Amino acid sequence: MAETSRRAAGRRLQLPLLCLLLQGATAILFAVFVRYNRETDAALWHWGNHSNADNEFYFRYPSFQDVHAMIFVGFGFLMAFLQRYGFSSVGFTILLAAFTLQWSTLVQGFFHSFHGGHIYVGVESMINADFCAGAVLISFGAILGKTGPAQLLLMALLEVVLFGLNEFVLLSLLWVKDAGGSMTIHTFGAYFGLVLSWVLYKPQLEKSKHRQGSVYHSDLFAMIGTIFLWIFWPSFNSVPTTLGNGQHRTALNTYYSLTASTLSTFALSALVGQDGRLDMVHVQNAALAGGVVVGTSAEMMLTPFGALAAGFLAGTVSTLGYKFFTPILESKIKVQDTCGVHNLHGMPGVLGALLGVLVAGLATHEAYGDGLESVFPLIAEGQRSAMSQAIHQLFGLFVTLIFASVGGCLGGLLLKLPFLDSPPDSQCYEDQIYWEVPGEHEDLAQGPLRAEEPDTQA
Amino acid sequence: MAETSRRAAGRRLQLPLLCLLLQGATAILFAVFVRYNRETDAALWHWGNHSNADNEFYFRYPSFQDVHAMIFVGFGFLMAFLQRYGFSSVGFTILLAAFTLQWSTLVQGFFHSFHGGHIYVGVESMINADFCAGAVLISFGAILGKTGPAQLLLMALLEVVLFGLNEFVLLSLLWVKDAGGSMTIHTFGAYFGLVLSWVLYKPQLEKSKHRQGSVYHSDLFAMIGTIFLWIFWPSFNSVPTTLGNGQHRTALNTYYSLTASTLSTFALSALVGQDGRLDMVHVQNAALAGGVVVGTSAEMMLTPFGALAAGFLAGTVSTLGYKFFTPILESKIKVQDTCGVHNLHGMPGVLGALLGVLVAGLATHEAYGDGLESVFPLIAEGQRSAMSQAIHQLFGLFVTLIFASVGGCLGGLLLKLPFLDSPPDSQCYEDQIYWEVPGEHEDLAQGPLRAEEPDTQA
Amino acid sequence: MAETSRRAAGRRLQLPLLCLLLQGATAILFAVFVRYNRETDAALWHWGNHSNADNEFYFRYPSFQDVHAMIFVGFGFLMAFLQRYGFSSVGFTILLAAFTLQWSTLVQGFFHSFHGGHIYVGVESMINADFCAGAVLISFGAILGKTGPAQLLLMALLEVVLFGLNEFVLLSLLWVKDAGGSMTIHTFGAYFGLVLSWVLYKPQLEKSKHRQGSVYHSDLFAMIGTIFLWIFWPSFNSVPTTLGNGQHRTALNTYYSLTASTLSTFALSALVGQDGRLDMVHVQNAALAGGVVVGTSAEMMLTPFGALAAGFLAGTVSTLGYKFFTPILESKIKVQDTCGVHNLHGMPGVLGALLGVLVAGLATHEAYGDGLESVFPLIAEGQRSAMSQAIHQLFGLFVTLIFASVGGCLGGLLLKLPFLDSPPDSQCYEDQIYWEVPGEHEDLAQGPLRAEEPDTQA
Repeated sequence: MAETSRRAAGRRLQLPLLCLLLQGATAILFAVFVRYNRETDAALWHWGNHSNADNEFYFRYPSFQDVHAMIFVGFGFLMAFLQRYGFSSVGFTILLAAFTLQWSTLVQGFFHSFHGGHIYVGVESMINADFCAGAVLISFGAILGKTGPAQLLLMALLEVVLFGLNEFVLLSLLWVKDAGGSMTIHTFGAYFGLVLSWVLYKPQLEKSKHRQGSVYHSDLFAMIGTIFLWIFWPSFNSVPTTLGNGQHRTALNTYYSLTASTLSTFALSALVGQDGRLDMVHVQNAALAGGVVVGTSAEMMLTPFGALAAGFLAGTVSTLGYKFFTPILESKIKVQDTCGVHNLHGMPGVLGALLGVLVAGLATHEAYGDGLESVFPLIAEGQRSAMSQAIHQLFGLFVTLIFASVGGCLGGLLLKLPFLDSPPDSQCYEDQIYWEVPGEHEDLAQGPLRAEEPDTQA
Repeated sequence: MAETSRRAAGRRLQLPLLCLLLQGATAILFAVFVRYNRETDAALWHWGNHSNADNEFYFRYPSFQDVHAMIFVGFGFLMAFLQRYGFSSVGFTILLAAFTLQWSTLVQGFFHSFHGGHIYVGVESMINADFCAGAVLISFGAILGKTGPAQLLLMALLEVVLFGLNEFVLLSLLWVKDAGGSMTIHTFGAYFGLVLSWVLYKPQLEKSKHRQGSVYHSDLFAMIGTIFLWIFWPSFNSVPTTLGNGQHRTALNTYYSLTASTLSTFALSALVGQDGRLDMVHVQNAALAGGVVVGTSAEMMLTPFGALAAGFLAGTVSTLGYKFFTPILESKIKVQDTCGVHNLHGMPGVLGALLGVLVAGLATHEAYGDGLESVFPLIAEGQRSAMSQAIHQLFGLFVTLIFASVGGCLGGLLLKLPFLDSPPDSQCYEDQIYWEVPGEHEDLAQGPLRAEEPDTQA
Repeated sequence: MAETSRRAAGRRLQLPLLCLLLQGATAILFAVFVRYNRETDAALWHWGNHSNADNEFYFRYPSFQDVHAMIFVGFGFLMAFLQRYGFSSVGFTILLAAFTLQWSTLVQGFFHSFHGGHIYVGVESMINADFCAGAVLISFGAILGKTGPAQLLLMALLEVVLFGLNEFVLLSLLWVKDAGGSMTIHTFGAYFGLVLSWVLYKPQLEKSKHRQGSVYHSDLFAMIGTIFLWIFWPSFNSVPTTLGNGQHRTALNTYYSLTASTLSTFALSALVGQDGRLDMVHVQNAALAGGVVVGTSAEMMLTPFGALAAGFLAGTVSTLGYKFFTPILESKIKVQDTCGVHNLHGMPGVLGALLGVLVAGLATHEAYGDGLESVFPLIAEGQRSAMSQAIHQLFGLFVTLIFASVGGCLGGLLLKLPFLDSPPDSQCYEDQIYWEVPGEHEDLAQGPLRAEEPDTQA
């Protein structure tokens, strides 16, 4: 009981203090640095001669809202598949993402739109911040159920900085193309989370095994997440690309790729399933791999056939990963990957980066015409050959893997700080530790919660 | 049993008759008065020389659809948190909102777009009607579970008229700015509903207390509502503002404000929670207060820092309201506020109005440049000082509170008409009174429903 | 047990083989035929002198995304009302629709955008493919719970071809107007599915009756589908119409029509309900009939009053259909219509076609002005009178009914192929046959699944 009260006191203080501290810090930084950009400022917008219809808002905001829905509805509900962790999945998603949107506006702003001592913001910074939140939520998926909210906020605090730095190196130093973030978002977020989970390895996690599965309706809640991710992924990959044919082609390629990953997921899931039955986990996740795998190349002249082939491959690899590789990852490599982010974001992200290498290497003036300037400006200007662009793309993948791994290590060490409130191995995947849960579940939970065991993290 | 049959007969007739009567009346009024406007009429649109791309549709419809999702998905599911009132929450939302869209098209049309004997409609009237539906659904939240559908339709019949009148006074007589409706929607809807709930006070409501809470999955359904409100609030506040920088800035400010109200909600919820646990009610509601509080000022040069500060304050006030003020409101002031609309819409709405007073009072030609004309036309034209605009804004708040209070009183008296089918105090928050509910819940409900008690309303 | 293993082996092979075969075939056809169109190709787009803002993407993509949400979220969850068929409803929706999007891109492409040996694709082909998926999912609704996924894919394989052919006859040979598809989508999809269900008649289906109802939370999941269909239907009907006033007016008419069908649904549902109680099935479905019934005419000068009247009628007919006609359809005509698609898509679709006949017949140069060219080009060019257009519209309905009936027959015969894995009459509406279902439901299901009976289909 003393232990319980100590933990309750810790909970009561840690999360509020951290929220207030972080919010205070970002608010001060906002006051000092953040300003409306030309497209959002009343005075700046009216300088010069242009039509209201030219405002960037109209070209990006509808797709931004699709991305926003993916981050909050998609990721939030996709992770609600656990039978007793729905409050945390959805609730911590909104908490983590809300902080990330603020913090990443600052970090990405310093790297990308810092002029004359100020960061200028508008719909593009909203999009970029949401993208960063995507990476943070992917990492969250790897450690879902095994960390408290204060730990998660600290993870975001670190990850956002490394995300911004990695993105800056790729996009602004290496001039790598990665519109939909196969590298910067999916590969980075997945390996950051996986390495972090490896550092946080919980040897007695099987004591929480009975809570690690789904129930019938929690799987349907998760399908809400899946479907919103599925339908809006074309907007995700296309929202930051060049206007006109760029956004249009990217959306189209992503749409095709997802249809193919869906078909291969159903095929493989039934093929490897017990008695030929389909597995909901595969449909919830691997069907989405087609969106990840064209994150780099959907902007390029991938061709509709190329999109289908890529999606098909990604769905296959992802489904097989869930079936065969996740158990090995846990037992042999000691990486406990709650949501299987290695299968949905890790492997398809790396594949997507490699596909980008391939498609960039095949770029010709003939295929892109005058559009080459907007997709591969350095090739169009003669500063790089297609082969050189391909090599830079490949190098971008390595840089990402290094940033993610080092970051994940640092993150794991940070989250192991002994004073942080972390759930014991026997109480993972359990909402009641952090939430007041309505009556019906109390009976189920009182057993393990009353017989509280020493925190194996400490 | 006789009582039960009488009630069943009343139910069978009241709702159908009222629906048919109201639909018949609005249909006739539509036939007489409502016409396509220049942007929706085949003949009118082709007069003059303009591009199809100039049609208002392309500048407002995508954001309108976000608002539409908020009204139906957002409000509907947010109120589905009650364990046995999900059918009514979602079903009556669609019923009430559908009627309001028609009726408000007429009422707002008479006030705002009545020319030559006709009301002209297009995407702006769709937006305005949805906004009015938002106010009606806020009022519904205060009395959720305590009224029947016929009563609710009568409430909407009255409220829409007063909403339209109040909006007309504020926007067209006082020239108050209130794009996202901190006053016209949130303050009006909340206090109308709260006063109405006070008139309808149910002294023996504790007999329905066991149904007033949530169950695990009903809380997750409610989170669907929360998240759709959260993500689309930037569209809600920005959809009626001036094109270009106006919409862009409003969306950006709202986005920041919501992130801050989310952080303060989590901080405060854990701080005041039992054992430091988070309360789902706070996350479902108070996290949204950031959208309400910038409803008036998001259009103005609030600055990104201002948006964060406002959101932070609103989340704090709202969470503390749920924890400490709602019980007092019920026990001392005799206002039973089912959804806590006082905390989500009432106090944040008033705060939002006051913030509008402050930001309007600080308006300068320097800060707004040539954009002053579109935000504060009377200041730009020299007819008002910033201070005068601020005073008008403040006066608008008082007008709103008066309209809402008087309207809520009238509404309460209307809903107390003895022949109206109203649930008895012991059968509130119960779908079975109005819906055929599938088997699983019948056992639970037969007790109270069979031992039907006299209606304390009558 | 031998029977069970044989069936398991069949399951394990049929679905994977079919998925791989179909995906392989469409991929090859994509490689040979499908190319980016002028608006999505990097090189083609940069030929000539036009602004990026002119790209079709910006005029159609936001509404396309609404349609995409309707197909996957709307149809998927609307069909999740069954207590033990949620995985299949949502899962097979995504599978069927994913295949249809690919296959229909090819079929519709051959009919509508085949030039110089290639099919050119962009946002319009995405929209058209989604529309075709809508028709396939309507047919799925008629046979929901009574077929396996391999059967469904074969149905889609056939239906997509007939859908494309029927659409080609109507739109390109008869020059019939049908923007929102009252005929091509709703009437076609419904009667194709109903005739198919009649061929597949399951005489002992009452053995699965206990699974045919909903449970409380499955009805709420279904309401997610309903509401997404309801809010986005204005986008569905308007997305393919001419730019400017065409899209604008179509969205507005649909919006009004849906409000009226909602009011008539509530009125009628209470009027005919047991003890005057509302029926969730009516609200979930009939409230949407207003979207179906203006599918042909919303583009025309229907007038706002006309939209209300049409919606009111459709909601009335649909609700009465659910109450009185569906039982007769099953007992007398031997058509088992799981979702009642006859009431939501069949009758309202036919009514919508007839309304199109009426409104087309009333078209005048005065009412449409210069907009006549874009709504009725043949009338504007003097090649047809309004009466002639009306007669063509009516003929289009007959053609559709013939294509649907013949197609449904062929489809039924195809699905009765004895080697196809079909659920026995006693195991319909049951996820466990095709899915690994988490623990809680196993007890319920083990009875019927263990005592497996001979397949009455075989």
